[in-house]
Formats: sequence, structure tokens, C-alpha cells
Amino acid sequence: MEKKNRVATLPQPNPMCGGDGPHSYARNSSYQKAVIDCAKTKIKEVILEKLDLAHMCLDLNTFKIADFGCSVGPNTFDVVQTIVETVKRRYEQQNIREAQKHLEFHVFFNDQSNNDFNTLFKNRFLSVCKPYFIAGVPGSFYDRVLPRNTINIGHTSYTLHWLSKIPKEVCNINSLGRNKHNISCSNLVEEMSKAYKSQFEKDMGDFLGARAEELVSEGFMIMSGMCLPDGVPMVRTWKGVAIDTMRDCLIDMANSRILNKERVESFSLPLYFPHMSELEEVIKQNECFSIEVLERMIHPMEDLPLTNDFIASTYRAIFHGLIEEFFGDGVVDELFDRFAKRLETHPIDFQTCVKDIQYFVLLKRNSH
Amino acid sequence: MEKKNRVATLPQPNPMCGGDGPHSYARNSSYQKAVIDCAKTKIKEVILEKLDLAHMCLDLNTFKIADFGCSVGPNTFDVVQTIVETVKRRYEQQNIREAQKHLEFHVFFNDQSNNDFNTLFKNRFLSVCKPYFIAGVPGSFYDRVLPRNTINIGHTSYTLHWLSKIPKEVCNINSLGRNKHNISCSNLVEEMSKAYKSQFEKDMGDFLGARAEELVSEGFMIMSGMCLPDGVPMVRTWKGVAIDTMRDCLIDMANSRILNKERVESFSLPLYFPHMSELEEVIKQNECFSIEVLERMIHPMEDLPLTNDFIASTYRAIFHGLIEEFFGDGVVDELFDRFAKRLETHPIDFQTCVKDIQYFVLLKRNSH
Repeated sequence: MEKKNRVATLPQPNPMCGGDGPHSYARNSSYQKAVIDCAKTKIKEVILEKLDLAHMCLDLNTFKIADFGCSVGPNTFDVVQTIVETVKRRYEQQNIREAQKHLEFHVFFNDQSNNDFNTLFKNRFLSVCKPYFIAGVPGSFYDRVLPRNTINIGHTSYTLHWLSKIPKEVCNINSLGRNKHNISCSNLVEEMSKAYKSQFEKDMGDFLGARAEELVSEGFMIMSGMCLPDGVPMVRTWKGVAIDTMRDCLIDMANSRILNKERVESFSLPLYFPHMSELEEVIKQNECFSIEVLERMIHPMEDLPLTNDFIASTYRAIFHGLIEEFFGDGVVDELFDRFAKRLETHPIDFQTCVKDIQYFVLLKRNSH
Repeated sequence: MEKKNRVATLPQPNPMCGGDGPHSYARNSSYQKAVIDCAKTKIKEVILEKLDLAHMCLDLNTFKIADFGCSVGPNTFDVVQTIVETVKRRYEQQNIREAQKHLEFHVFFNDQSNNDFNTLFKNRFLSVCKPYFIAGVPGSFYDRVLPRNTINIGHTSYTLHWLSKIPKEVCNINSLGRNKHNISCSNLVEEMSKAYKSQFEKDMGDFLGARAEELVSEGFMIMSGMCLPDGVPMVRTWKGVAIDTMRDCLIDMANSRILNKERVESFSLPLYFPHMSELEEVIKQNECFSIEVLERMIHPMEDLPLTNDFIASTYRAIFHGLIEEFFGDGVVDELFDRFAKRLETHPIDFQTCVKDIQYFVLLKRNSH
């Protein structure tokens, strides 16, 4: 649930809340930052241990990095900075001094075309350290966004649970009123789960297919995100509970005639968190990559009790655009006021929730 | 005066009026479009006649184009489309079939970091034809914005008259009250002209120095813009008269106590239109380039009488950000209402004005 990029094939995709106001993604992404810090340690490790600069297909001048689903920062700059610094160390380590002397870094920040790139660039220019050239790349990462055979290291963090669209079957199920109590895949209704899973498989296939073309031979694709332990339904995690709480608030608003009931019943989130084995399986289907690392990270906030305010503001930043797109202006304030209040009266019982899994994956592009 | 990009080294540089509202640059750039159509013909000619794909330092996969000072479109897409199509024809002409089969185009759209890239990307996605990958590159083009040795064709159109800053000497002259009747270089006061000219020389030197690093050997730098016939002061062109009209309106507003008098007297535009020989001279100073073409284009609207409404809306779109930055919110409407009215009572006498020159320049990057 942590991050953005979403639904590029919907008519009006909605990225994270832009700008830098109190409700913006930029100011409400500390939960994401915590896990990114953890991923950064892994990123350093794998670059220093596994990046083969001697055999990688390298442009002599420029080392190219892309972050897919970058949102507006600051997390993206943090990760990119780590990658740049570590690649420099790797050059030293591998003793490729000649190249290093002239080496420049070019970083491509990708997100949907309606992402707030103006804020991304503004945030970028606020940062002091600028050891690389930057470019913003608008477009859905479920399609090609960069030329063939150009990127040395691709990265994406907490983006791949955003499906390119709500599965058609889910819309049908909803229209039959058979799913009015779920706004996302709870893993409880089998036909729903199948539809979500199959959309996820298609999207992941598209993502990896596009990246396989964009990456150079021996190039790295680094992915982190959230998945579920095998056999555990989404509703048993605290994030699943929080989504259900959001749904309850929407139903309350329909009952109070603030929202149209049919509209609420037809609302779904284009979200899917795969089980760990599903994730592995779908990655293996793309034979252009070999899996170098696929492991669990410990989220630094995993054992901390999260405050209700924190959950409410994080969820608001994440779902703001989506809610507004579907229900129109003026709904977001009311919804998240109710959400915060409901968390007070119906607090999430973290003790009984099953922990979700934060995964870290390193793929290497096989030779073209 | 035609276009945007400006003052990247000022604390709050202001690009063209963003968005796509009635006063936006996107909707008020037809004067610019007319001359761009003319430049497009020249661009096709020089690519088909002079681009040496056989000897150009080429990435086998990707042909890279950059537009420096792109603003928000649509003109930039128009020119880029022309370049892409013509390069494809040139590949056919030079019979480089193997490369052509796999060739992809990567286009970098550069403008200052506070340019409205969101609108640029939105405009881009409205266009049907997408035969290239795009990237937005924020940053002043008077500095490096792209990695070394990457760009095959660079382009800039009506941008280089925007100085990186108002020359220090001009600020001093203004503070002494010796120039309260000019807001730009009228070429009438010698010390003013010298200061503007020297800033222009420095900026052009920086621009060409940065491009010399970014372009590949045999790469093209295509530049179009406006200059003055040798010996003709700016005030004798209609654009000079229009700027003086804008100044008169500002003085009126100071006299009516709508604006602070000292503030108006200290206002200058960071604009400089060189004389033709000055332009040639400053280009020759960068020895990385050889001048392949330096000639005059005929502006298709050159002999048409422009309506006052047209002039007012074009000037508003161009100077909106700059005026707002300097004088604060709420001044723009009043100023350009007055500007339009003054053009009615004091119409520009196009008959007595000297024509400015639209230049077209093609530079070739010498071997690195």
C-alpha cells in the first residue's frame, strides 16, 4: 500500500497527492522512507557484491539509472543518491579508473504523465548535492518509456501492487452486487482473488517485458515492495484492516446520503498484494532475467505501534487522488476525518494481525 | 521577444505563462509558430543536405535530440517531429538500413526548473503521433543539463535573447536614476548597450560551451531567433516600440500610484537582441563549432499588419511571469488592459519601423 504509480491505462490515472502541502505525499511518506532506508542497505550490498562493471554493456561516458514510479520525492532522490555513490565505489573497487575519471550519471525519473513533475523538479533543486544529470520521464511503466538497451540500473519501490486497471471481472462482480463489502482484494472471495491475481500477473509481465528491453546486458533491476505470506489473506494484515476501515467509512457516508450508495458499492481499488510464491512465479516467467536475490526485509517500523493519526495521514496521501477521481471534489476531507475517528473507536489490533512481508528483489538482465 | 526560457541565475526565474488557459503561452504563441514553420523548412534542408550519419558518433540504438528552452508546447513538438521525420529520411537517403531497423529516438525537452513541465507532458500526451521517447530536463541551458557526448541534434528557438540575468551595470545605472525611461536595451544609451552586450556575450559563450560538451562529434546545433540589422537600434523596430509602450503603461501606473515609482524606475527586462555581426562574432569565439549556415529567414508575418489585440495577448503571455515576479500579484491584468488601450490611442506605425531579422544558424560540432 505504501506508494504510488497506478492505473496508467485508466482514462484518468491518479498518482500520489502532489505539491508539498500538509496532506501531500512528499510530507506523508515516512513509513515508506523507513523501509527505503532498509532497502538502501540491501542496494549497497548487491551493487558492491554483484555489479559486474567489467562485463556490463557500458557507455563509456554515462552510467544510466532509472527509478520507475518515482512520485515527487524525497524518497526517490534518497535511493538514487545511494545508487550513484555505491556505483562510484564499485568502480573504484573494480579498478576501472579510466572510465571513472570521465564518468557522468544520468538519472531518469519515471512516473505517470499526470504525476506532479513540477514538484519533483522543485524538490530536486532544493537538495544540495547534485552529482548527476536528471530527466523526468512521463508514462506508465507497464509500457516502454525509455529507448532499448540504455539503462544500467533500474529501480522501483512499492509501486507494483498498483494494477494498471481494476480487473474487468471485478467490475462485473461488483455490478452484480456480490462484492459490495470489499473495495480491494481481501483474498476471501475466490473469483475476486482470481481476477486480481490474473491482472497482477499480466501487469508484472508487461513491466518486466518493458524493462528487459530497456536494460543493458548485465543490467540490474532492483525491486522492493510488499507481499503476503503464502496462505495469509490480505484482511488478516493491519493494512487490510485499514482498507476495510476506509470502506466502512464510505458505507457510512452512503448511509448518511453524503455519497451515492451504488457508487460506493461499485468502488474498487486497483491494488493487489501477491503472495510471496506468486511473486516469485511471475518473475520466473520472464526468461530475460535471472533472479539474483529474492528475500525478505525487516521493516524498521514493523514492531512499532503506529498511531491513528499517522495511519490516517499516510492513507490520505496515498488514496487522495483516487478517491477524488471516483467520488469527486470535497469527499476527501470528510472521508479521512471519519477514517481517523473510526480508528479511535475501532482501533486496529496489531497483536492479532499477521505481518505482511517486505520483499527485496535483484534481477540481472541476461545477455541480449 | 518571441519566446521563453530566461534568467536561470535569478533567484526566481520566470518562464512563459504556463497551463493552457486563455492567457497561456500555449495558446498565444502563433507569432512564434509562424517563424517556426519557416525554420522547419530550413531544418529539413540542412538535415537532408548536411547531416553526416556515416561519420557522426552514433549510438547504434538511439538517436538523441534536445530542445533547449522548450516551454510547454505545442511549438516544441512541432519542431521535434520535423527533426525526427527528416532524420529518418536521411537514414534512408544514406542507405544505413541496418541501423534504421532498430533505431529509436530519444528527445530531451529542456527548460528552467520552474517551467510548467506538467503542462508540457499533458500537451505531449494529447498529440497522436508518438514516434519517440521523451524526457523533461529541468535546468538553465546556460549551464550543462545533459551528460557529455550524448546529443546528436540540439535545437533552440527564440530563447537566446533572454539573458541569464540583468547586467549588474544596468542595475547600477538604474539605481542612479539615469535610465528611468528604458526597461530594456534600446541601444540608445551607450553604457547600457555595452553592459547588455557584454552579458549577452558571456551567456552565449556559456550556452555554446555547455552544448559543445553535450553534443557528439559531427552533431548539429540548430538555432533560430531574432537579431537587429547592424546599426539599427532596438527602438526603431516595432517590438522595441511595443516594449516602450509597456514601459509607458508602467509609468502611468506609477503616476496613478498603483505601482511604486522607484520600483518601476528600477525595473529592467533581461532581454538583448544582438546586431547580426555581434551574433556572428560571439559564435565564432567558440572553436568547437564550425558555422555551416548563418542566414536570414523571412518571417511569414513580417509584412502583415498585426492587430493590437494580437500584440497585447502575445506580450502578455511572454512577460506575464516576469511582471508578476517583480511587481507582485494582480498587476498583470491592469498592465495589459492599459497596454491594449494605449495601442489603440498610440498605434504602432509599422510603416516607419525598421524590420528586425530572423536568423537561422546551423553549427556543426567539430571532432572531440
